Amino acid sequence: MQRWEMRGMDIQNAGPREPAATVGALATPALLLDKDRLDRNLARLSSRMAARGVVLRPHMKTAKSIDVARRAHPSGVGPITVSTLAEAEYFAQHGFRDMTYAVGVAPHTAERTMRLRKAGIDLKVLVDSPEQATMLGAAGRAGGVTPSAFIEIDCDGHRGGLTAADPKLVAVSAALAEAGVKLAGILTHAGESYSLCTPDALVVAAENERAVAVAAADTLRAAGHECPVVSVGATPTAHFAEDLTGVTEMRAGVYMFFDLVMHGVGVCTTDDIAISVLATVIGTKPEKGWILVDAGWMALSRDRGTAAQRIDQGYGLVCDLSGKLYPDLIVAQASQEHGILAIRSGSAQALPDLSIGTKIRILPNHACATASQHELYNVVSAGNDAVEAQWPRMRGW
Amino acid sequence: MQRWEMRGMDIQNAGPREPAATVGALATPALLLDKDRLDRNLARLSSRMAARGVVLRPHMKTAKSIDVARRAHPSGVGPITVSTLAEAEYFAQHGFRDMTYAVGVAPHTAERTMRLRKAGIDLKVLVDSPEQATMLGAAGRAGGVTPSAFIEIDCDGHRGGLTAADPKLVAVSAALAEAGVKLAGILTHAGESYSLCTPDALVVAAENERAVAVAAADTLRAAGHECPVVSVGATPTAHFAEDLTGVTEMRAGVYMFFDLVMHGVGVCTTDDIAISVLATVIGTKPEKGWILVDAGWMALSRDRGTAAQRIDQGYGLVCDLSGKLYPDLIVAQASQEHGILAIRSGSAQALPDLSIGTKIRILPNHACATASQHELYNVVSAGNDAVEAQWPRMRGW
Repeated sequence: MQRWEMRGMDIQNAGPREPAATVGALATPALLLDKDRLDRNLARLSSRMAARGVVLRPHMKTAKSIDVARRAHPSGVGPITVSTLAEAEYFAQHGFRDMTYAVGVAPHTAERTMRLRKAGIDLKVLVDSPEQATMLGAAGRAGGVTPSAFIEIDCDGHRGGLTAADPKLVAVSAALAEAGVKLAGILTHAGESYSLCTPDALVVAAENERAVAVAAADTLRAAGHECPVVSVGATPTAHFAEDLTGVTEMRAGVYMFFDLVMHGVGVCTTDDIAISVLATVIGTKPEKGWILVDAGWMALSRDRGTAAQRIDQGYGLVCDLSGKLYPDLIVAQASQEHGILAIRSGSAQALPDLSIGTKIRILPNHACATASQHELYNVVSAGNDAVEAQWPRMRGW
Repeated sequence: MQRWEMRGMDIQNAGPREPAATVGALATPALLLDKDRLDRNLARLSSRMAARGVVLRPHMKTAKSIDVARRAHPSGVGPITVSTLAEAEYFAQHGFRDMTYAVGVAPHTAERTMRLRKAGIDLKVLVDSPEQATMLGAAGRAGGVTPSAFIEIDCDGHRGGLTAADPKLVAVSAALAEAGVKLAGILTHAGESYSLCTPDALVVAAENERAVAVAAADTLRAAGHECPVVSVGATPTAHFAEDLTGVTEMRAGVYMFFDLVMHGVGVCTTDDIAISVLATVIGTKPEKGWILVDAGWMALSRDRGTAAQRIDQGYGLVCDLSGKLYPDLIVAQASQEHGILAIRSGSAQALPDLSIGTKIRILPNHACATASQHELYNVVSAGNDAVEAQWPRMRGW
């Protein structure tokens, strides 16, 4: 929580207050994290990977919390994936040792990465060009350490990386060897799987992700390069992959919390969604079919990921304080600090009668985006009104 | 900047670093604020209001910074508008005294508001129902202070508030008097003006906002209620209002920074946009016409406000390090920490040749949303590479 510098005036209790003991007493909007759902989601994927002999390297970009990371890894050292170097530094300073920074490395990040390796953190980075390999090698020499890098593979045209058939693949591997950089392996991410919504299509996407990754590794091995790790992953493919032959590592992040986009993809039920935004009714417009709440896009994020799905959830799906869904009640509109609740268009449901002061919970479209709008998680257990803990989130780059 | 708790290990310089002395040396992504443009934008609206004898009450929901607030109000006491009670507490503890909390009051916020009034802050709140008036009066008695409230008027169906013709208007005013709450006046916001894009339509929206506000005030006065303040405002109407007869106060927030949505509305040029996100090229995909940068939606926000406008700017418009626009180069796609730059579809422009490590600046769709993704402003002056200061932002509720 933020602490404001005082300017010699007395504002009784006007600064940040003590954590509330109960959900009902929390100032709103506030982010809730259901510990039971979190633990169930963590166990679901870790047991699935354990059964296949694949290492799970959770992506901490969603939770950005040491408390959640330790829940996923009681060992407290990893392996984890991070999306920023600030995350790498934060988790390193809390004891984590084995990390992959899953963003293409640039000159300024290479130098910062080497400082972490110098401090004993096994931080691996991504490259997909000979230029990055050469630059990374120079950063390693300047930092007095040996860098370790994955070659990023493009399995579905989603973003960066080389296709498995790209002749540059072997060239990048050779450039890494030439530059004195250790080849950690190859890494790919089936980002396009987020746009799917049937089990069959997800199984196909997962098999494609596996096949492309293994083909890329085979190409490198055939060229005489060691490729110890074959890393794949996206939450949808991680849960639908039937065969992971040749894959050594799985990465996923949003599976810890899940959200309405993942529900639309078909990876979870609304009962699996572990985070929600607590809000308070601040007005009603029955003539318009509106209920106004104090959670706008600042608390929910501007993410409209479900707009492209079969069921558009607006800015979120509305539950009562206990987590029970109000049928077809969504956040239809959002301004900075106002949300407008309305019945989904086309539904015959009646608007519930919620008076000013009533507390509700909103399930988010995209857990990564919604959680990032908040300072901390108010940790609760299903069917329990107590706020058991407040887990801070880190942010920044 | 965040400070991580150390765990007895040596991570040389791995924590947050000293502020960079130059823009070119900043770790990316980073938020830049052009002080010259900020001052020009502030002066433009304050002189416009001074010429009309209307008090300007800047909305601090966009900047959320004491340094920016003092730039707008060298007096350091107000008047200002705030969107959360955390903002009210933050600005109060930095010396501001005259504030309006422009969100409908609820039981838990009424109590917190009274603590600020007890501390000597003239914090006014919004109501639009007799229930809120009664609740607010009770909170005032419990807190040993006299609350002050605006009645929220709906001038364009945008959100909350009563229409000027609503018989409840006088009932709410009577309920305030009955509850011992001071009527500060009436307040309205032409939120629908954000969806306009021609000067004529903006002039009409501004006149409607004025006329509705004055009509509501006249209704209250005719019923024997004092209505000292007639408060209107939205950045588009504030800049296009030709006649403000009967209006005593103007509120606006995004005008300080402006953004691509305001450019699409026609209130500013791209040269007026005072904030931008500094990013670094981390990859290229010439075969796809893509340049990958390290600014995704975490740095830019998920706001796609220009998608509904005549020119869709994607997730932002791209400039070089000096602020010069690359013709038709936009952030076409964004994932959490990756942005994909591409030429706007339909344009004949060629993709610029930007190598890995090149720094660019991205103009945001929505300044309120983009700024909220960052911890601080790196303050620069036009055509100067020096980072003159770092101004922290507050957040939370």
